[in-house]
Amino acid sequence: MSHRYIALDEQRPGIAALLAFRPQTAAPLNALAETILRGPSPLTPGERETIAAYVSRRNECVFCCQTHAASARTHLGDEAETVDAVLADIHGAPIDEKLRALLVIAGRVAEGGLNVRLEDIERARAAGADDVAIHDAVLVAAAFCMYNRYVDGLGTWAPPEGSPAYAAMGARLATEGYGPTAAPSAT
Amino acid sequence: MSHRYIALDEQRPGIAALLAFRPQTAAPLNALAETILRGPSPLTPGERETIAAYVSRRNECVFCCQTHAASARTHLGDEAETVDAVLADIHGAPIDEKLRALLVIAGRVAEGGLNVRLEDIERARAAGADDVAIHDAVLVAAAFCMYNRYVDGLGTWAPPEGSPAYAAMGARLATEGYGPTAAPSAT
Repeated sequence: MSHRYIALDEQRPGIAALLAFRPQTAAPLNALAETILRGPSPLTPGERETIAAYVSRRNECVFCCQTHAASARTHLGDEAETVDAVLADIHGAPIDEKLRALLVIAGRVAEGGLNVRLEDIERARAAGADDVAIHDAVLVAAAFCMYNRYVDGLGTWAPPEGSPAYAAMGARLATEGYGPTAAPSAT
Repeated sequence: MSHRYIALDEQRPGIAALLAFRPQTAAPLNALAETILRGPSPLTPGERETIAAYVSRRNECVFCCQTHAASARTHLGDEAETVDAVLADIHGAPIDEKLRALLVIAGRVAEGGLNVRLEDIERARAAGADDVAIHDAVLVAAAFCMYNRYVDGLGTWAPPEGSPAYAAMGARLATEGYGPTAAPSAT
């Protein structure tokens, strides 16, 4: 078990401990996750959760990567194994060229916003991504650069990779979502 | 003027163009900014806007850095010049040791969540930061790693540094805030 930076509930892993510690900020953080991962979008929830898991892997955030990979597997059903292929190598994974191009953009976003290049955008558009799909992929990638830093910057603990806890959390997120989308003032 | 990646309103700079492009995601993004920068916290809005400007400078996001520096100046009033001192050098700036320690943590968060060290946390606590102050500083820093990547990853344009547009935007944000905190479904 790692050291702890602030007084969090030891029973809760990752962001769950932070959401319980500070309900005031939990409300908009949950509303944002619900909107960008499960709200209306040209990208499926499975595609968006795959982007979230990939960015979290790039940022070395074990909790977020494992949780969102598990959520993506639930969404993808028969194609669940593509998540692991993406985490191993986006260039060789058996995914369509649109998602591959959006994952390339997501990786650039993880490095820094200014690292995205016009040719990355053009490649995604040529593969069938419209403006909203490009927008949503960039926002999911950017948002996980926040969630990953929040989870690791405050020293939360994570179950080890492969723990059955992730499959359970992922399934719940995929089916029940990210909590109320109510405004902070209403919760 | 830079190339444009997606079809945004050319009249709107930075995140304003993205919020107009995608109202569905604008609502939770605004609610989050309002909560973390202006909601109840042991850190003043001026301190939090200073952290936001500093992280945005670290991430080389001109729009966010200039806008939040201007907001911080409005909040800080007679001490407005400390913002520029922080942007020049957090170690030499005429600020209290608590804010300096939190800015060190914010800089680590910008590099990556795993870069925050226990000694950084202990330094902040020794300077008077409680758990909620440490939490809020980390979350502001993490959130600006998102906003910065969103703004630059989608190729938005920014007025040049020193443009009077920033003072106007910053004053408005400091006095009127970040739009409705209503849930996405209510706007």
